Amino acid sequence: MSQGRIIIVSGPSGVGKGTILRTVMQQRESLHYSVSATSRPMRPEDREGVSYYFVSRERFEEMIAAGELLEHACYAGNYYGTPLRPVEEALARGESVVLEIDVQGALQVMQRRPDAISVFIAPPSYAELKRRLAGRGDTPPDIAARRLHIALEECRQAKHYQYTIINDSVGHAVQELEAVLTAEACRTSYRPLNLKEED
Amino acid sequence: MSQGRIIIVSGPSGVGKGTILRTVMQQRESLHYSVSATSRPMRPEDREGVSYYFVSRERFEEMIAAGELLEHACYAGNYYGTPLRPVEEALARGESVVLEIDVQGALQVMQRRPDAISVFIAPPSYAELKRRLAGRGDTPPDIAARRLHIALEECRQAKHYQYTIINDSVGHAVQELEAVLTAEACRTSYRPLNLKEED
Repeated sequence: MSQGRIIIVSGPSGVGKGTILRTVMQQRESLHYSVSATSRPMRPEDREGVSYYFVSRERFEEMIAAGELLEHACYAGNYYGTPLRPVEEALARGESVVLEIDVQGALQVMQRRPDAISVFIAPPSYAELKRRLAGRGDTPPDIAARRLHIALEECRQAKHYQYTIINDSVGHAVQELEAVLTAEACRTSYRPLNLKEED
Repeated sequence: MSQGRIIIVSGPSGVGKGTILRTVMQQRESLHYSVSATSRPMRPEDREGVSYYFVSRERFEEMIAAGELLEHACYAGNYYGTPLRPVEEALARGESVVLEIDVQGALQVMQRRPDAISVFIAPPSYAELKRRLAGRGDTPPDIAARRLHIALEECRQAKHYQYTIINDSVGHAVQELEAVLTAEACRTSYRPLNLKEED
């Protein structure tokens, strides 16, 4: 059985992480998508256990205290984090686990799991990033400017990731992410040669 | 322009390195195949500058002394080595350079060029290695046994390489080598993000 790996995928809002990951996950059976927990209120479009596991703020703080999270971060007063047990269970089954998480959480996972693969998905240019963020409906200019600022800050953290994939087209980005996963499976440390006469 | 890399490819005799490399080189324009120098006598099937650059033993020793070789090794009384200048010229053009060299030389390149990509091509099993080595015509049993012994010794050195590709089928091995080259081009250190407003 091949050994499962943790695959961290980050990138600014609007960069197209979701589309890329959905496509790659359709092509690979042995990938487990980690659903995050959050203390933010459910929205009409949310589905429990699909977009997030929804828990109360108190429960989330209990999970932190009990070491039940692989990473966690706080945004706009809400907690977000990766429940540890499903990750460990999937790894034990030999599956690799995709964590679609933000930079803050990613840095925690890199530290705790140095064998994790880390991939940053980046926009092809500043202009394109601006266009994609603005493209999300009627966003007031000040909120658009704020989002752009946050996205640029996130892109500045790409240097902490092993791989950077530029999403100039979904097909190309998917091909590169596929190549990263295939190449990482070829790492000698995960594929020790042991040729014996009785083979 | 993308930055060229040195790609070390090793593997025991008969494992199919040549076929895999020829296929990958046909698919990628920006790969330069490094032709080794040797002091062994030319054989009828050899072509100067294609199989090797043929030089005298004295000239080879001059090249060593003058630092004109990236690596060199001695086998059965003959020298083999990689001329440095063509490698540097190809890298300067932004090409990546494939060194199809033995383990002894590979270890020297890994030390001198820590940024080199190293790939070991391995047979799928002991039995298959034996079959492939025996398959090379009417080899006397003692010579076949000696070749097998050397090949197994080489496979024991795979641990020094970043990647191990098992040549269970040429198509699969080519796909994995392609993935390694694509993934290595996605390394953040070779693809620094620099999003600026004027983009």
